[in-house]
Amino acid sequence: MTTIDRLFRNARLADGRTVDIAVKDGCIVAIASAPKTYGSVGETIDLGRRLVLPGLVDGHIHLDKGFVGDDWKPHRPCTAGFNVRERVLFEKQALAEAKPISVRAAALIDLCVSHGTTQMRSHVDIDTQVRLRNLEQVLAARDAHRDKVSVQIVAFPQSGIVTSPGTAELLDEAVRAGADLVGGLDPAGYDGDVDGHLDVIFGIANRRGVGIDIHLHDGGLLGISEIEKIAHRTKALGLGGKVTISHAYALGEVARDVAQRIAQLLAEAGVAILTNAPGAHAFPPVLLLRDAGVNVFAGNDNIRDSWWPYGDGDLFERAMIVGYRSGFSTDADLATAFDMVTTDAARALGLSGYGVIEGAPADFVVLDARHVQEAVVARPKPRDVYKRGRLVARNGAIIMAPR
Amino acid sequence: MTTIDRLFRNARLADGRTVDIAVKDGCIVAIASAPKTYGSVGETIDLGRRLVLPGLVDGHIHLDKGFVGDDWKPHRPCTAGFNVRERVLFEKQALAEAKPISVRAAALIDLCVSHGTTQMRSHVDIDTQVRLRNLEQVLAARDAHRDKVSVQIVAFPQSGIVTSPGTAELLDEAVRAGADLVGGLDPAGYDGDVDGHLDVIFGIANRRGVGIDIHLHDGGLLGISEIEKIAHRTKALGLGGKVTISHAYALGEVARDVAQRIAQLLAEAGVAILTNAPGAHAFPPVLLLRDAGVNVFAGNDNIRDSWWPYGDGDLFERAMIVGYRSGFSTDADLATAFDMVTTDAARALGLSGYGVIEGAPADFVVLDARHVQEAVVARPKPRDVYKRGRLVARNGAIIMAPR
Repeated sequence: MTTIDRLFRNARLADGRTVDIAVKDGCIVAIASAPKTYGSVGETIDLGRRLVLPGLVDGHIHLDKGFVGDDWKPHRPCTAGFNVRERVLFEKQALAEAKPISVRAAALIDLCVSHGTTQMRSHVDIDTQVRLRNLEQVLAARDAHRDKVSVQIVAFPQSGIVTSPGTAELLDEAVRAGADLVGGLDPAGYDGDVDGHLDVIFGIANRRGVGIDIHLHDGGLLGISEIEKIAHRTKALGLGGKVTISHAYALGEVARDVAQRIAQLLAEAGVAILTNAPGAHAFPPVLLLRDAGVNVFAGNDNIRDSWWPYGDGDLFERAMIVGYRSGFSTDADLATAFDMVTTDAARALGLSGYGVIEGAPADFVVLDARHVQEAVVARPKPRDVYKRGRLVARNGAIIMAPR
Repeated sequence: MTTIDRLFRNARLADGRTVDIAVKDGCIVAIASAPKTYGSVGETIDLGRRLVLPGLVDGHIHLDKGFVGDDWKPHRPCTAGFNVRERVLFEKQALAEAKPISVRAAALIDLCVSHGTTQMRSHVDIDTQVRLRNLEQVLAARDAHRDKVSVQIVAFPQSGIVTSPGTAELLDEAVRAGADLVGGLDPAGYDGDVDGHLDVIFGIANRRGVGIDIHLHDGGLLGISEIEKIAHRTKALGLGGKVTISHAYALGEVARDVAQRIAQLLAEAGVAILTNAPGAHAFPPVLLLRDAGVNVFAGNDNIRDSWWPYGDGDLFERAMIVGYRSGFSTDADLATAFDMVTTDAARALGLSGYGVIEGAPADFVVLDARHVQEAVVARPKPRDVYKRGRLVARNGAIIMAPR
């Protein structure tokens, strides 16, 4: 008879079933509606019919930028409208006076994990000033906190590529040093050379066999033309399923028929869209894109850093904000908002075996809600967070129970 | 020497001072930076330098509509764009199957109080079907929960006035029965008779000496023309400081110079604007209006009811959403968002002696944040809520300590 490490009894799943979940070596080995007999059970935990949802997946975060765990850094107003280049300079100054990444990333990871995040994709600045130093520190943080959260890393050219000679080589080096994807930043708006910028990152992706995640704030038809080029290159190189455009504000700014045409193209090419549903800016029309077959997923993005002061790391709240900003109200739409921080984010990250299903890692969150919809709107704070079957956070505090 | 009921030691105020707060008969009788000697102190509570902020004021809530404390009621999609009349009908059906107001209002009050709300303005439906029944039940709830929260009531014609004969008389009756203000609803969009609608409510306000709070969703220049009429009538009747326009979406839809002209008019007339910063709809430009001298305050509005599924009753979260939607990022702007759910809401409600100041009721919230700005962005959940000096909620649960 099977030996298991932990048996979670009376787990209520999102589909309404109450089941027992058997965990061995950090994975879910059985989900059963009727009690099963095991050869030996290390520990039995009665979940008392609380709701069990898959561990949340943050599709976009910056572990090297946040000031959680540091002194409060007041924001500086933009001098004349939002300007990425000005913000990058402001950020450089603020980060120069900040605590080390080891401290800040640890605080941010703990904040996110305490709310239920068990996986994340973090962008990490690569430029000719910091070179690979941020990457090294985030790689170290990933290793130090691997029992709480799994981190995927994007080598992110926050200061441009074409206009910042040397960065292309550093991005390539970053991927060899452990970054899982290569990033980009406003090929037109920041670098003024769309093809030059895309040549570099698609070149690295193709050569090194990694995915791509491009920050694209460029608006209107300028942004649309870049999205088209990214989709065409993705198709040409057979990178479908491995490319994300983050933000893609342009899709929320153009006429609906334009967005619809681009949605088809993105779906065909297998390019995903990431949004955090910004508060005061247009953002992609989530349902329109999803209806066309595009994977639209969500993440927190900036959390109390030089870009904006908001953010609590709670992906249930991010799902609420995505729904709130998108005008979601039906149960189906609220479920979509939740999918965007779980299943769909997992798909974009290329995670295999994700969810509260047999064979998947035993990453889950236990909380008091009747269903996913209520979890999104009410976001009850008493939560137990399990990573690979081990309790790592309870009621907002990191616990790290024995293995 | 003075006798006091409670001495709160080591309270850190929003201005950074650490003080002792003396409470007698539910009011703050002294705030002192150096220890004072009292003749007798009933109880001493050491706040350990936690931040003490004034009890939050919800400027707009509907105690008769929420489904908190009831079964989950799935939303029905709009048939062809948002339509107030269709939503009113949908709501009627949903409320017909709901638990009594006594149960739902109690649950909603407890939810709000648990987060730190100590005052609220609740709209209550008055129409020819429910007549004064909702009002009677909300009046009863107000009385039942008066030790936790103070409630101001608006008699709200949710089904119109001119197009619903008999409602005008019921509104007048409602005010005589205990409603503190008279409400209105889209004089043009719902009733199709702006002057007829305004005649009724300004008539009642003038005759009964009560304030006005009008729901105005009407958009664009239609809404603007109604706002102008409301401002002119307010000025003519000398009702400055007693009139609120809730939502006023139009101000967020028109060109900036139009909004600016109307802002001047509103400031001169003493008409306040309430917003909850909706997620997927234009809303008033907060800073533009405030810079012109208009009192712009905030409230939660609908909480998990037939109008939308969102809402947690937490006014720190509402302040965050107002800031997030308005693009607030500096410390000054984050403080403004907080003022909108405290001082400015209190002013709109006509509360005298509000705040953590000598002479005011001892309504305050104690939480772990470095300052107001951090309270808005991080919204830490461990909170102690005091109403008239008495602990009424702790860490999200209603406590009601002995008097």
